[in-house]
Amino acid sequence: MDTPQAPAAPSVDADVRQVSRRAVIGWAGAGVALGAAAAGTAVAVTRHNDGAAGSSGVSVTDSAAVPFYGDHQSGIATPVQDRLHFAAFDVTTDDRAALVDMLKQWTSAAAAMTGGREVGDGAVDGPDDAPPDDTGEALGLPASRLTLTIGFGPTLFEQDGKDRFGIRAKRPEALIDLPHFPGDNLDQARSGGDICIQACADDPQVAVHAIRNLARIGMGTVSVRWSQLGFGKTSSTTPDAQTPRNLMGFKDGTHNVSGTDTKALADHVWAAPGDGQDWMTGGSYLVARRIRMHIETWDRSSLTEQENVFGRTKGEGAPFGKQKERDTPDLKALPDDSHVRLAHPDSNGGLRILRRGFSFTDGTDGLGRLDAGLFFLAYQRDTRKAFVPLQRKLAGNDALNEYIQHVGSAHFACPSGVRKPGEWWGQALFG
Amino acid sequence: MDTPQAPAAPSVDADVRQVSRRAVIGWAGAGVALGAAAAGTAVAVTRHNDGAAGSSGVSVTDSAAVPFYGDHQSGIATPVQDRLHFAAFDVTTDDRAALVDMLKQWTSAAAAMTGGREVGDGAVDGPDDAPPDDTGEALGLPASRLTLTIGFGPTLFEQDGKDRFGIRAKRPEALIDLPHFPGDNLDQARSGGDICIQACADDPQVAVHAIRNLARIGMGTVSVRWSQLGFGKTSSTTPDAQTPRNLMGFKDGTHNVSGTDTKALADHVWAAPGDGQDWMTGGSYLVARRIRMHIETWDRSSLTEQENVFGRTKGEGAPFGKQKERDTPDLKALPDDSHVRLAHPDSNGGLRILRRGFSFTDGTDGLGRLDAGLFFLAYQRDTRKAFVPLQRKLAGNDALNEYIQHVGSAHFACPSGVRKPGEWWGQALFG
Repeated sequence: MDTPQAPAAPSVDADVRQVSRRAVIGWAGAGVALGAAAAGTAVAVTRHNDGAAGSSGVSVTDSAAVPFYGDHQSGIATPVQDRLHFAAFDVTTDDRAALVDMLKQWTSAAAAMTGGREVGDGAVDGPDDAPPDDTGEALGLPASRLTLTIGFGPTLFEQDGKDRFGIRAKRPEALIDLPHFPGDNLDQARSGGDICIQACADDPQVAVHAIRNLARIGMGTVSVRWSQLGFGKTSSTTPDAQTPRNLMGFKDGTHNVSGTDTKALADHVWAAPGDGQDWMTGGSYLVARRIRMHIETWDRSSLTEQENVFGRTKGEGAPFGKQKERDTPDLKALPDDSHVRLAHPDSNGGLRILRRGFSFTDGTDGLGRLDAGLFFLAYQRDTRKAFVPLQRKLAGNDALNEYIQHVGSAHFACPSGVRKPGEWWGQALFG
Repeated sequence: MDTPQAPAAPSVDADVRQVSRRAVIGWAGAGVALGAAAAGTAVAVTRHNDGAAGSSGVSVTDSAAVPFYGDHQSGIATPVQDRLHFAAFDVTTDDRAALVDMLKQWTSAAAAMTGGREVGDGAVDGPDDAPPDDTGEALGLPASRLTLTIGFGPTLFEQDGKDRFGIRAKRPEALIDLPHFPGDNLDQARSGGDICIQACADDPQVAVHAIRNLARIGMGTVSVRWSQLGFGKTSSTTPDAQTPRNLMGFKDGTHNVSGTDTKALADHVWAAPGDGQDWMTGGSYLVARRIRMHIETWDRSSLTEQENVFGRTKGEGAPFGKQKERDTPDLKALPDDSHVRLAHPDSNGGLRILRRGFSFTDGTDGLGRLDAGLFFLAYQRDTRKAFVPLQRKLAGNDALNEYIQHVGSAHFACPSGVRKPGEWWGQALFG
């Protein structure tokens, strides 16, 4: 078999036991670091590189590891990392036990990789006549703030009327099949999926490595339906930070939910007791939309047109009539169909979402145009009360629609966090 | 028109004159910085962000600008940056003057962008009723060691027997139509091209911005034929640096030509007087190959098989029987069909190439497999004496062939550097 020999119920001790004889010195340090991470302290670790003969192992770098265990999954309120690899999987088996076993193995591997460690025995240890447990391309790279966030799509609960895994009754009401919005031109090959994994890291090689190794562990149980690389973040969840620019050259989503604003997170992002299914308490609903930008058309429009579309200046990103990006906008002073006016919480009864979108460029289409745009990711407490009404309004009115098209769409229920070693992704749903 | 109003013969003074009234303070500093860059000193600059009202402008950051002017183009011997955006263009006009005009505009824009400045009047200056000269998504980002390297493909000199631009007689003999190699499975939509631009930078947004703005300037004269994003470098041109790992988890190309090894560069990389066409003296020939990796198959092979394929250890990357990556291999101790043995200069009469390849992942193919691999870039003094014999040998014998397939191919003549402001890309060819 080519899957790691991870224990069904991983624990820190079990992880340490998996480590090879040659890596003991490095891992003694890693144990300490892991303890700190579990306690909520970000620590910096580097993957043990066996070939370096003990000279690497754990070292302090400028790239911290994000704690894996907690009440909420990391990768949502976590300060947005620089790069993204996102994958949607289809489950290819009807065997519930096999799916559960994979989720346990995934959890163990995710705890290792987000901690800056290799999967299982690693890339160079274990028996030489067997495939290595880890594919190895992240050997020697720091943890790079990798987060892995899992979500479950509507089709995992029910597909073609079938209760595939005995969890239909646990489908949250908020996990709706998203409605058609005006202007949607969705490619089914880039939409949907039974399970998603969002991998974010400051180093793309670390994010790609993580998705690849999870796909490998899942071989025979899941297959990748679609995946998306994001090369540049477009959102900030850090208060007062400058919002990064999207490929239209603008800052957008200034009034994002801050990852440190506990009240806003509770009100708008985390599902609460009484919201619906108990297993989702502390979780969040993720909407992913692949938004192609008609870049060539946008680039031919005047600065005035561009600024009117957003309702803010291009240079600073200030709302019209204001000086700074974060100045409170005078919404009535903005064009009726401007993006800021339409999307602002004050125009939507206080509605807010947490955005974590990334710019993408995937080569060229058949007409010589860059296939580029925004891979929009939004987390919310209830999609029916957040993304759906907001997108209905935008799709019908936003001046931006002339320059964009939604070409992919997916919706996932992301459960609460794995609180301690031994628990696993989806335990409250399947356990 | 939506193209920048760049002067036909750009100069530092002309560039400074283009700067808006609102940016004068920042640009006074930029003039100094540019002078230092022209003198060969790497300087750190940040794009002027007009909206920041003079608070940004030029500042010292940790990301240096690579000098644009010099005897050789930057982006070849330059220490390899972290990210790549590569574009191949087709010329869509028969008008030689229009092509020359575009090359002049490109040169001006490239000098600005590699210097950490905006194209033309920038993203927020100039008349408000006209499209901005710069698309703006790199506003406020550092130069990020951006290099832009141009090359001319065989079809620019002659296509379907036609001397398109009166330069057929100047086609270098070394700029051959590459032969078919065993195992090639080339997608014509990802192969060839009249002109290429290699954009390398430590920040992908800066590389993507550069290609996009050149494509925009070229609208009506060229169109993008194909483009490729590379997320992680796989080669080093820095002596003694560890070679980064490819997506097979291995270090490869250890004995790369160093960017500081003047003799090796002269012997193996730079075209010399007497080599052929005078306009290529100081230039280099670039072969680009999109190499898909059968990752899922590779991941099922044993560690022993993987190490035998390369002839080196996976952990350290040491040749069999040696301790360190850079130890001299005992070639006879390696398997006959191992990649290191076949590709090593000592097995090829001292043949060497300068590699600058990058890992890519472009989503998923129709079978749920990651479309990932190596975008191989190699620079050499004469392709007929370097890539061609080497690839003939590898394609026929390399154990690696079981796990890879060449799916894209292109060949370009990259001229010498633009030596000073006022000169332009292709001047020796077209001038």
